Amino acid sequence: MSNDCKKAVVLLSGGLDSTTCLAIARDAGFETYALAVRYGQRHEVEMQAARRVADAFDVRRYEVAEIDLKMFGGSALTADIEVPKGESADELGGDIPITYVPARNTIFLSYALAFAEVVGAYDIFIGVNALDYSGYPDCRPEFIAAYENMANLATRSGVEGASPLKIHTPLIDLTKAEIIRRGTDLGVDYALTHSCYDPSPEGHSCGHCDSCLLRLKGFAEAGLTDPVTYQGKT
Amino acid sequence: MSNDCKKAVVLLSGGLDSTTCLAIARDAGFETYALAVRYGQRHEVEMQAARRVADAFDVRRYEVAEIDLKMFGGSALTADIEVPKGESADELGGDIPITYVPARNTIFLSYALAFAEVVGAYDIFIGVNALDYSGYPDCRPEFIAAYENMANLATRSGVEGASPLKIHTPLIDLTKAEIIRRGTDLGVDYALTHSCYDPSPEGHSCGHCDSCLLRLKGFAEAGLTDPVTYQGKT
Repeated sequence: MSNDCKKAVVLLSGGLDSTTCLAIARDAGFETYALAVRYGQRHEVEMQAARRVADAFDVRRYEVAEIDLKMFGGSALTADIEVPKGESADELGGDIPITYVPARNTIFLSYALAFAEVVGAYDIFIGVNALDYSGYPDCRPEFIAAYENMANLATRSGVEGASPLKIHTPLIDLTKAEIIRRGTDLGVDYALTHSCYDPSPEGHSCGHCDSCLLRLKGFAEAGLTDPVTYQGKT
Repeated sequence: MSNDCKKAVVLLSGGLDSTTCLAIARDAGFETYALAVRYGQRHEVEMQAARRVADAFDVRRYEVAEIDLKMFGGSALTADIEVPKGESADELGGDIPITYVPARNTIFLSYALAFAEVVGAYDIFIGVNALDYSGYPDCRPEFIAAYENMANLATRSGVEGASPLKIHTPLIDLTKAEIIRRGTDLGVDYALTHSCYDPSPEGHSCGHCDSCLLRLKGFAEAGLTDPVTYQGKT
């Protein structure tokens, strides 16, 4: 079955998850529109990774949304709060991690929705994961379902009765190892991706932050070697 | 009944509706946090009006979110499409006006949600109106209800079981004349506000665009005189 002309907007951070998500969207036959978000991250290396990935996948259109969440404060990822080391999401238990950004996925999806509406896409892919990020309210399936419902009322399609919008979350129930295996099967080059919250000036991953620990654990469980460079290693 | 310490985020465009909305929030006893959005409007005069209004109301905190929707295109308000003259929303019938901005209220509310979460507010006010803007999908009550449902799942409050978020739309069923009467009763100085989509370089309103026509009709029906300056009039 071919559906080559169907368009999908894919939220792309340049990380492992969103890159796998892009690969899945492309494999499903969608013409892909990648949307990266510059949101007061402290590291331009993430944006460079998103660009590299978009180029490697030869997406139809690549856009960067500039989002200033710093003005509100409230997160280690956007304000001047130190990123905690050595605490995986697991170890934080049921609490919401300090790296949670207020309303982040709500805002990102809203930009994706605007982009989708303009290009005539009815499919949005987001690489949220409910296992590794159980502490993030906006990574839960019930949030995504409520968002999709809202999105179908927010836009022209809701008024004009066109194809309903669908928010795809192909990674939501996968372990990190399963995500890596899936992406590897689809030919993803994970050397292009970047996950670290706290990279060195040269762009090397720290190997100790939440995101690095999850990534390394995932590669270990998948029986594969992470191709990115970690600080102090060669 | 006093609830002076309750905080509300109010989306403030500097227009007639959002200014009235701010007056209503304050009258209800909320400590107000105003959020203006600079989103590729072609006229800085709107931002100046928002600032004037925020100052006049002595809000607790005033923030401007810089939102670039121009990159997506698709609207007369953000792209290089001429704003139509002499067509009120009524005359456009059931069609969506060209001045509709894709996913605009979805994006604006998402920023308000982030702001609310950071300052600890559980109330958001937005001056949407279902009568004058029936063609805009994101001004309908069913959209607002779906947004509120989503917002309660998106944030810490949804996880931690704190006070549920409420999206207030006090103007949704009011005519423009009713809005103006309500604001006038609450002491709003409408000379501070700005509505025109196409003002002169000096900031005078055109008197012919969608927004001016609605405003002038509203003042006429309310039996009041619009205090703003129109082009060619003194």
